[in-house]
Amino acid sequence: MAHIKLPDGVPGILGPMMAYPDSEKYLSGLAQAVLRGPSSLTEGEREAIATFVSSGNECYFCTNSHAAAARQLLGDKCGMIDDIVAHVPPGGISDKLRALLTIAGKVRRDGRLVCAEDVADARAAGADDKAIHDTVLIAAMFCMYNRYVDGLGTWAPQDPALYEQLGTRLATHGYLSF
Amino acid sequence: MAHIKLPDGVPGILGPMMAYPDSEKYLSGLAQAVLRGPSSLTEGEREAIATFVSSGNECYFCTNSHAAAARQLLGDKCGMIDDIVAHVPPGGISDKLRALLTIAGKVRRDGRLVCAEDVADARAAGADDKAIHDTVLIAAMFCMYNRYVDGLGTWAPQDPALYEQLGTRLATHGYLSF
Repeated sequence: MAHIKLPDGVPGILGPMMAYPDSEKYLSGLAQAVLRGPSSLTEGEREAIATFVSSGNECYFCTNSHAAAARQLLGDKCGMIDDIVAHVPPGGISDKLRALLTIAGKVRRDGRLVCAEDVADARAAGADDKAIHDTVLIAAMFCMYNRYVDGLGTWAPQDPALYEQLGTRLATHGYLSF
Repeated sequence: MAHIKLPDGVPGILGPMMAYPDSEKYLSGLAQAVLRGPSSLTEGEREAIATFVSSGNECYFCTNSHAAAARQLLGDKCGMIDDIVAHVPPGGISDKLRALLTIAGKVRRDGRLVCAEDVADARAAGADDKAIHDTVLIAAMFCMYNRYVDGLGTWAPQDPALYEQLGTRLATHGYLSF
């Protein structure tokens, strides 16, 4: 049961977002701007970073929602997202995304861990300033969303079909559709 | 030096906010809504939570900026904020804020650590659902802001006078004034 009163039957972050609209509009707007707005990263790459961070933080709701969105956006034939969720080195990943996940994994633990070599590796693989900025911000954002979801004890359904539906909605309509 | 090109001489989060306005408006708007909008917590209590989380994450820029704002808003005669920054049990703190800092400290590490007893203690000390919600969200937000600041390697000036100026601006004009 959640630690505060939330709407019945509304999963994960959607419960507190519905109950607290004053903050919801910025939480949703930020996700839409950073995960769907202009970037040198594809929407699929950005969802892969969100999945990787949520998986590292072991946030069940966020991991499964964003994994479903990432699989759909990437047309993930090689099981890269399953590998990310399973915490194993992902197959079918570009050098650029691999380098960016290294940065994201450090930001997830402590932003100060990111070093000049990590950034140089990402640049050598084709990442520009905007890609590095977005990677750091996405990792930081999901450290927030994951904690908001789990710190309030929100409901995380176990039915995989629900996450497929959520993923489809995120992949096709983005973050302003709920 | 920061990991990406940022405006010269602009400290902390203000650099990437200035360089990336598409996300800035949501990052600033979220802070204004949650730290200055309607709440059952005072602005000073909310800045104390922000300081506590930033101090736990050892983010120099955020800790010193929000500590300055919190001292001014609280009229902190007992040195409570200095204690929070020094990681010692704070003097002059209410039972309610002490219980909320326990929740914030758990959210900072991992949202799943918050247990029913923590929430019951906060309620017994006078916290309502909105106070608990805002505590969890502020703790989660500063896990984001701290990582954004440090993950990009932004400039953290060492001059205490600058943080006093920033704190005054936050205390008197909020988060939409930069």
